[in-house]
Amino acid sequence: MPNIANRGSNMPSSPIRKLVPFADAAKKKGKQIFHLNIGQPDIKTPKSALDAVRQADLEVVAYSHSAGFASYREKLVKYYESFGVTGLDEDNFVVTTGASEAINFTMMSCLNPGDEMIVPEPFYANYNGFSVAAGVEVVPITAAIETGFALPPIADFEKVITPKTKAIMICNPSNPTGYLYSKKELEALKEIVTKHDLFLFVDEVYREFCYDGKAFTSVLSLDGIEENVVVFDSISKRYSACGARIGAVVSKNKAVMDTVMKFAQARLSPPTLAQILAEATLDVEANYLAEAITEYDNRRKYVIQRLQNMEGVITPNPGGAFYVFVKLPVDNTEVFCKWLLEDFDLNGKTLMMAPGAGFYASEGLGLQEARIAYVLNLEDLKTAMDCLEAALKVYPGRTIKTVTGNRAEAV
Amino acid sequence: MPNIANRGSNMPSSPIRKLVPFADAAKKKGKQIFHLNIGQPDIKTPKSALDAVRQADLEVVAYSHSAGFASYREKLVKYYESFGVTGLDEDNFVVTTGASEAINFTMMSCLNPGDEMIVPEPFYANYNGFSVAAGVEVVPITAAIETGFALPPIADFEKVITPKTKAIMICNPSNPTGYLYSKKELEALKEIVTKHDLFLFVDEVYREFCYDGKAFTSVLSLDGIEENVVVFDSISKRYSACGARIGAVVSKNKAVMDTVMKFAQARLSPPTLAQILAEATLDVEANYLAEAITEYDNRRKYVIQRLQNMEGVITPNPGGAFYVFVKLPVDNTEVFCKWLLEDFDLNGKTLMMAPGAGFYASEGLGLQEARIAYVLNLEDLKTAMDCLEAALKVYPGRTIKTVTGNRAEAV
Repeated sequence: MPNIANRGSNMPSSPIRKLVPFADAAKKKGKQIFHLNIGQPDIKTPKSALDAVRQADLEVVAYSHSAGFASYREKLVKYYESFGVTGLDEDNFVVTTGASEAINFTMMSCLNPGDEMIVPEPFYANYNGFSVAAGVEVVPITAAIETGFALPPIADFEKVITPKTKAIMICNPSNPTGYLYSKKELEALKEIVTKHDLFLFVDEVYREFCYDGKAFTSVLSLDGIEENVVVFDSISKRYSACGARIGAVVSKNKAVMDTVMKFAQARLSPPTLAQILAEATLDVEANYLAEAITEYDNRRKYVIQRLQNMEGVITPNPGGAFYVFVKLPVDNTEVFCKWLLEDFDLNGKTLMMAPGAGFYASEGLGLQEARIAYVLNLEDLKTAMDCLEAALKVYPGRTIKTVTGNRAEAV
Repeated sequence: MPNIANRGSNMPSSPIRKLVPFADAAKKKGKQIFHLNIGQPDIKTPKSALDAVRQADLEVVAYSHSAGFASYREKLVKYYESFGVTGLDEDNFVVTTGASEAINFTMMSCLNPGDEMIVPEPFYANYNGFSVAAGVEVVPITAAIETGFALPPIADFEKVITPKTKAIMICNPSNPTGYLYSKKELEALKEIVTKHDLFLFVDEVYREFCYDGKAFTSVLSLDGIEENVVVFDSISKRYSACGARIGAVVSKNKAVMDTVMKFAQARLSPPTLAQILAEATLDVEANYLAEAITEYDNRRKYVIQRLQNMEGVITPNPGGAFYVFVKLPVDNTEVFCKWLLEDFDLNGKTLMMAPGAGFYASEGLGLQEARIAYVLNLEDLKTAMDCLEAALKVYPGRTIKTVTGNRAEAV
């Protein structure tokens, strides 16, 4: 029997999805699970965009251009202008099957096996998978929960730069931390990528979701690093269409776009039906997004307030996306999250979170942390927080023992 | 400015799509082009499958299971039974974004950079792209036009097997040659993969399209190589839904499926809208496929008859798929195909074909060959064949000079 490859063995399981079998088992037993483990919002996809698919005059579901519909890419140019990115034309876009494929194509195009890419951790776990597939070494720089996972000092980057370093990658606003990078932080990154001639990859799929009056800055709007910057985009979160699988690679670097295009040609085209939906999202009324942002902001405030009132829970105040990355008073969040599915319920209900360790490349970090996606409505979030609060009081591996009322004792 | 990676530079342009800019230019000048260069049929996607998407009760286009809808995979089990493949369950399927992703995941899972994969040439050009992405060396075995591109002798395989050889890959029926492998040929492959403990990858996306009463044998139905075999599937051709981008990896090798699943998790899910369509294709009335097969068979007979009547054209009689791979009396088919777009027309019309060299890994082969996809209706095919016939008489690089009537003189 032929063996699978080392590359296959080295491929990590998704830390977000590896608890799915336990969730399935719990559901079979009749337990209701609140899924805060995955960035799958309950917000409705815009009806007008779905109607565009329903009403499309389509007899043959044909391949599209490998770079995606030209009409869609032309509209994307205008959408990018709306948040301050000018000087793009449709050739600066390759439409991809989700941001996932955008990341994959970009790594394959820009990085060789053995090249190093610096990524502040915690980072979106699947970056690991794409790196293993591309043979790229992820070099982590650790961001601290105490700063709300702000950009680590540039000196930390300088320390790990080697002749093999080829790129820095961030997600802004961040999945999994919700941290929104400031223009000043982006300028700091600009300096270091210019100095060392590195690529700067920025995953901007959550760019609309910013709170507390904070402004989003696209790295594409910075002058002087046009050749360094590659942005990953997706409609998944913006228009709550995760299953559409429509993303994009965006860059002003022609050599990068030409190379990405070769990978795009090899897989023929992005999904046609979903491109109809994606193109239609660009005509959705502005209040759709405004309402979605308000809704997420309300959820964010609620979840943070609940978490901050739970004993021993350390909760940053994230400025963007729809995640909060917390530290819990438990021995190990993977064990805890599994226990929540297998051994806990509050009136037949429990919640699912994503254990923190999977978002770190450094061994041993994040063991007490977890990502919570506030992707459910306020009522469901209330029940989920009730579950978490109750669970933390009885979990056998808890590190704080509540003695009476608010008094607690570390164990 | 940071440079793209060697891997990116080495990535081949699609030989099928690289003439697209010349076609676009010709269209802008008002020329009508008959696209026989790409496997994009004009057959209608089943209306009932499209209606399933239109009528889906869908408010949120959500991620699906990373392996695809469980309900779809369960139905695939039954569909596979219909052509003699038993013993599968839904875990033997991972639904992918087209066969492209199925090939990519399988190569990434089963092969390491530097591993060798033997592929009879001419082969589907994009296998090269996936191999470069995976760092895999394609080792070609040349099939001969004189045999209709039958499986080369097993002795040819033995000659190139090294300790690095890890897999053999075929497409059955073949894109680009239309050759339908016999059960005997598959048994020969079985022996060699067993002897050398190799994977056997088979692209079966054209399995329904077999002619002249010939029977298709799925490699999954052979006993004794269950652990060696991985099949790539897609609805693109079967149900004329190329743009849906729904394929599958199918294997009884559990380690392979578990590893493919990790790659599937990293990209979250295959497209949801298109999965609704794909699942509905399995309920399409049987006469849809019967009619499509008859239609392709009529086209095949017509195109072959026309080609056989063109002076100096060598035309095999393919038993499957919807391609014919011909040898033309021209200096170089890439130059010829470009000339057809730029400098030739018959009453404002011309045709586009895929130059042969791109389907060979061996340098210098296929320079006089081209792939013709009989994906257009008979009327369009007639005009396209008229164009080709006329073009071959006046192309400056022709290697036969027609003197009078049927008499020809080699130059």
